[in-house]
Amino acid sequence: MPPAPFNDRPGSGDRIANETDLIQTYLAPLTRGAPGAFGLRDDAALLSPEPGTDLVFTSDPIIAGVHFFAADRPADIAWKALAVNASDLAAKGARPLAYMLNLALPEAPDRDWMSAFAEGLKSAQESFGCHLIGGDTDLTPGPLSIGVTIVGAVPQGEFVRRQGAAIGDHVFVTGTIGDSALGLLVHGDPSALPALTAEERAFLAGRYLRPMPRLALGPPLRAYASAALDISDGLLKDLARLAGPLGLTLDFGLIPVSRAAASVLAQDPTLTQAVLGGGDDYELLMAVPPASVAAFQRGAETAGIPVHDLGALQENIPLRVLDSDGTPIEVSRFGYDHFSR
Amino acid sequence: MPPAPFNDRPGSGDRIANETDLIQTYLAPLTRGAPGAFGLRDDAALLSPEPGTDLVFTSDPIIAGVHFFAADRPADIAWKALAVNASDLAAKGARPLAYMLNLALPEAPDRDWMSAFAEGLKSAQESFGCHLIGGDTDLTPGPLSIGVTIVGAVPQGEFVRRQGAAIGDHVFVTGTIGDSALGLLVHGDPSALPALTAEERAFLAGRYLRPMPRLALGPPLRAYASAALDISDGLLKDLARLAGPLGLTLDFGLIPVSRAAASVLAQDPTLTQAVLGGGDDYELLMAVPPASVAAFQRGAETAGIPVHDLGALQENIPLRVLDSDGTPIEVSRFGYDHFSR
Repeated sequence: MPPAPFNDRPGSGDRIANETDLIQTYLAPLTRGAPGAFGLRDDAALLSPEPGTDLVFTSDPIIAGVHFFAADRPADIAWKALAVNASDLAAKGARPLAYMLNLALPEAPDRDWMSAFAEGLKSAQESFGCHLIGGDTDLTPGPLSIGVTIVGAVPQGEFVRRQGAAIGDHVFVTGTIGDSALGLLVHGDPSALPALTAEERAFLAGRYLRPMPRLALGPPLRAYASAALDISDGLLKDLARLAGPLGLTLDFGLIPVSRAAASVLAQDPTLTQAVLGGGDDYELLMAVPPASVAAFQRGAETAGIPVHDLGALQENIPLRVLDSDGTPIEVSRFGYDHFSR
Repeated sequence: MPPAPFNDRPGSGDRIANETDLIQTYLAPLTRGAPGAFGLRDDAALLSPEPGTDLVFTSDPIIAGVHFFAADRPADIAWKALAVNASDLAAKGARPLAYMLNLALPEAPDRDWMSAFAEGLKSAQESFGCHLIGGDTDLTPGPLSIGVTIVGAVPQGEFVRRQGAAIGDHVFVTGTIGDSALGLLVHGDPSALPALTAEERAFLAGRYLRPMPRLALGPPLRAYASAALDISDGLLKDLARLAGPLGLTLDFGLIPVSRAAASVLAQDPTLTQAVLGGGDDYELLMAVPPASVAAFQRGAETAGIPVHDLGALQENIPLRVLDSDGTPIEVSRFGYDHFSR
């Protein structure tokens, strides 16, 4: 069937007629370099772990209408599906090896869409250093859903846990916070934040659409961090998880924000809430014992990852944020819970 | 909120208010015995592979309205979600170790439902010898979907591939074929196949609802099979996959059927099609070189798994099925394709 003329729906054209075609044409090429994927012609994949490594597993599906917009560019959707999983590995000090992909499609996809989706996966896996090794495709009566389960490796015994932060440990955060929550605002509503420049809007939307897992921080993270996690549900919610029973008094001014985000906050200070509680940053939060702070900072510099010291964890105090006058900031939406929307 | 009185919808009652409650109350207990799951309190799970083993991965989600009925008993849904994945491991000669669970729920589940679902997972994982180690829960605008990614182990180099059957290899099948397709008929429509006894109906529905992965066949499978897969998309479709470029002339009478299925076929011979093309058997199909047939059969007997010889693979012939008169049986629905419904 030739594509209909004058059909301007992005990506519409030839539909893929069967599962084997979809898998062999678009997905099997993503297994090159992973012999245990058997070109997606077996029912299971094989992985021979290197001696002296532990394996790390994480699985975070993304669903249209929940985690992304169905009309988003397929390459961006694919990137995000893999990136959010690689980010969890980054927080554990692990290096991605391989992933399983479960595609639930509301209809047989057209070739342009599928081709762009596969391109997005290819860029992401090349960037993160892993291969597709297996998975499944289904038609679903529900929305497009992309389930990635990723497998990584860490040197034996060097997995960095979420729990383990001690009194006095410094909390570090990578990169800048809040871009993605603001990016979602401008991506979802082109009339939002009208005072931003086109470049700032594109930067923020890009941070939402194409998060970059902080995999390069692995060596100093494994060497020096007592605990770590990635920020997926909002800075404060994930900071509370890192702190466990401990607390922190955090000056808002210490939270690293991008130039674009600073410009937004200058125009609309209520968006402080988006910086503190908005999700999808995919930066790393970690606790580092005081004696290791300098070495950790040098390691991060060598890795080329900017890290910022948010202060030291203390006992018997709550987690709170102070503005520049020392006044506590009320946080209206303390991070993201999938069950309390 | 107390359950509404006189509310007779099965399982309706208290709803689970948040994700942490759902995970910690119902899912975390399923990680007992797997220290690397960290009680589902980390963002990733850790697995230290035993030296000398290869790891095997497979991932087969099930979706309400596609692979099961949303109104099915939650313990049955849970069992099936894990069993279909364990069955893929069984076909590779692998032993289940651990699984990741991605639950996409159309609404916050009520406690009775979730409790029964967790019970079903518990029975299944105890039966198959694995533990929950991680995953994710989401609310979805779509139907209930349960994504399991399972990890198994095989002794290094002993993974049994789907491809590898040679000319002259005997094709063996475990158990009985077609029960599940017939079970789906009676489960989905209580007035179907009226001549069956209640016991026969229950047997067939049970084979559909609670498939039993043939994990015990591992040792003889690894020792003697040249190729294997499980029958999920119908005997003939999966037989064609096993045979690859080879063919087989199969006497219908050699296909093992249960007493209940034989009784159905006696009443309605058109249901031969359900036996040949219906999915969800989760029995194993394997090719065994002639010199190993006797040893394989002894091994299967020791394992307590019934196996049946369907004949030897030949070159330059098609795959076809003959009835008792030697007449080829036309197969109208050559197995299941998710894209050609």
